[in-house]
Amino acid sequence: MLEFNEQRYLDGRASDPNELGWMRGAPPPADKRITFESDAFLDFPQLRWSLSHMRELVPTVNVWRGPGGPALIERSDKTAEIDALTFADANGRVRRFDEALYDTYTDGIVVLHRGRIVYERYFGALEPHLQHACWSVTKSYAGTLAASLVHEGVLDDSKALAHYLPELRGSAFEDATLRQAMDMQTGLNFSEIYEDKSSSVWAYLAACGLRPPLAGDCQMRTQCDFLCTVGKAGAHGETVKYMTANTEVLGWVLARVGERSFAQLLHDRLWSPLGCEEDGYLVVDPAGMAMAGGGLSATARDLARFGELMRREGEWNGKQLIPASVVHDVQKGGDPTKFHNTTLPGFTYRSQWWVTHNELGAFLGRGMHGQLLYVAPKAEMVVARLASHPVAGSSGNSPITLPQMLTLGRTLSA
Amino acid sequence: MLEFNEQRYLDGRASDPNELGWMRGAPPPADKRITFESDAFLDFPQLRWSLSHMRELVPTVNVWRGPGGPALIERSDKTAEIDALTFADANGRVRRFDEALYDTYTDGIVVLHRGRIVYERYFGALEPHLQHACWSVTKSYAGTLAASLVHEGVLDDSKALAHYLPELRGSAFEDATLRQAMDMQTGLNFSEIYEDKSSSVWAYLAACGLRPPLAGDCQMRTQCDFLCTVGKAGAHGETVKYMTANTEVLGWVLARVGERSFAQLLHDRLWSPLGCEEDGYLVVDPAGMAMAGGGLSATARDLARFGELMRREGEWNGKQLIPASVVHDVQKGGDPTKFHNTTLPGFTYRSQWWVTHNELGAFLGRGMHGQLLYVAPKAEMVVARLASHPVAGSSGNSPITLPQMLTLGRTLSA
Repeated sequence: MLEFNEQRYLDGRASDPNELGWMRGAPPPADKRITFESDAFLDFPQLRWSLSHMRELVPTVNVWRGPGGPALIERSDKTAEIDALTFADANGRVRRFDEALYDTYTDGIVVLHRGRIVYERYFGALEPHLQHACWSVTKSYAGTLAASLVHEGVLDDSKALAHYLPELRGSAFEDATLRQAMDMQTGLNFSEIYEDKSSSVWAYLAACGLRPPLAGDCQMRTQCDFLCTVGKAGAHGETVKYMTANTEVLGWVLARVGERSFAQLLHDRLWSPLGCEEDGYLVVDPAGMAMAGGGLSATARDLARFGELMRREGEWNGKQLIPASVVHDVQKGGDPTKFHNTTLPGFTYRSQWWVTHNELGAFLGRGMHGQLLYVAPKAEMVVARLASHPVAGSSGNSPITLPQMLTLGRTLSA
Repeated sequence: MLEFNEQRYLDGRASDPNELGWMRGAPPPADKRITFESDAFLDFPQLRWSLSHMRELVPTVNVWRGPGGPALIERSDKTAEIDALTFADANGRVRRFDEALYDTYTDGIVVLHRGRIVYERYFGALEPHLQHACWSVTKSYAGTLAASLVHEGVLDDSKALAHYLPELRGSAFEDATLRQAMDMQTGLNFSEIYEDKSSSVWAYLAACGLRPPLAGDCQMRTQCDFLCTVGKAGAHGETVKYMTANTEVLGWVLARVGERSFAQLLHDRLWSPLGCEEDGYLVVDPAGMAMAGGGLSATARDLARFGELMRREGEWNGKQLIPASVVHDVQKGGDPTKFHNTTLPGFTYRSQWWVTHNELGAFLGRGMHGQLLYVAPKAEMVVARLASHPVAGSSGNSPITLPQMLTLGRTLSA
């Protein structure tokens, strides 16, 4: 397993954005200012502030929680017990649960057990009512909604994407099926290496309005324009290749076929019926299209609500918000022969969820810099963890996080 | 009185943004797209959509409504009676109340009488839960908070602005007092003509992040930088000259002295204790500073709540949120010998409110394109009216709106 090079970065305590004074003062002094234009707002340690303040940096669309008051989650506090848990990380180092939160640059964590909040902590710039970037956990929302629409017969996942979006003719997506996009099994000429700013994903982020346009980006100022230019590399349906572009196409299909925006769909089917405490929001591109592959910001509690809905097999207060068969299909996982990510042994990928096939039956939404929605049905546990880890890729924190969650689940279900 | 040239523009019905198809579709077709970059989002008829969707165009900071559910306003419906009211506009033309809403390009209106909603309607792109740009009605919030802090002794309104903000030394604000800024009695070399894009106010809007930067703006990318460059023209304290720059300085003083952002101050003192139904939000500049002179978006009901607080002389559910003396001071109005706006005969200006001195004892917050908060204590009436009139200046709609409100107030109090 990869070990995070701790020497290279300020640690979880030293990088606390309040301590460092980022964006403090009226106005913040120039050397403590985090601006969209500087293109450094997603760099470490600035991102320790930015990920809790995305709407102050870029245009966003609201995901309304609905009228009336929130449906508060009951509590059964186990803070002291959980803080003191110890576990061995993937490299054999023994860590305490509470210390591991700093080690993974956690901004907020909510643990539900049997539907009650047993643990909830916030760090740095995050507060209980503040929305934090979920990054690719957004994908699990999009995949679940798409699978629901397939179940309802509104979408047919065996159809080619160009059937729904004729604009995609000539792109790699033309002959990929909706299911292949849902399962990340398309062959795309696209690179997604967040540590390399020449990687396709950064030009893509510019098209989404998430970084200032560069000279070469100027002709592609919307995500749809960008998606139409993605060429093919290899065959579709052969292997899981995790590419955000697939989810953006999925979001585009949802908005086109559902005749309502992704934000509206999230409100109608999740935010409102789940009684979310706060609105969520989505980053929008210059054409007003929400970024279904990574644009969501939500509070830790509201993220946990979605996990809890999945743990309850889609049922919430007597209503089936997500078909149980959709949840079962995710739990069953994807084709293991097509999953070749060696950092996640035993995992598969299905409908925009990472499926562990571990003893807790856990499946995960994961987003860069440490975002995590860990649904563990056999432990009756859900964990929403928001973070601002220096490293975008999950390899930075997974060696700690995955054993940490396994230990937590074992303890709660013991 | 100036007459609005109706022939030049699509009328209130024909310019309905839903009918025109603005921002419909996934993605919206190029000719129906409203983008920040095009710099046309504040043009008519695009603004009929934009003013209900500011956060989708520019970065914003949330004004949190607080935890728990909203405190709903009771209802006592008088829609039919109010719709049928007739009145003569300032040019003698007789209009029906409901038709006048179209004539003034109304997006939403809430009328409170004795604290109950007696009338509430929405048009075009606005919905009850959606926030709409309040533009300069924001000033009345800032002025009321500033006057409250003066009452509490936190601020001294006889002090020069440079006392609180040393950065302003060398600018016109250096020797202006806080009170002069609150009452718009500074002598500034600043022009605020929204119809003329070479007017100072447009360069100022660019510095606030509300329009794309132009070549000449590049050196001034924050509102504080801009304010430090405003030169003097004429003496302070001699006459009311309505200039948004005064309120931005006021907002800056509030943030500096209050040691919390304007958004936080609005949450603490108004949004949370008033039980607002939805969060509000504020446009922020590239340094993250909120635009206290015009950056607020709020729902019509939440705007009405603030008016109702003023009508109740600052008392809300047994708590004095705003000192009664602050409200009385606004009601008393400013120095009439210093008020020379011939389109508003009999008015004065005090603490960022327009004071009518009419038979209803009304005082108003007003914002461009028809935003209005009309507080009429003697009629026990409050009207929040959000609009997207083609003309920025109030002269476009005041000849209709002011007689309309007077008739409404007389009727309700009859």
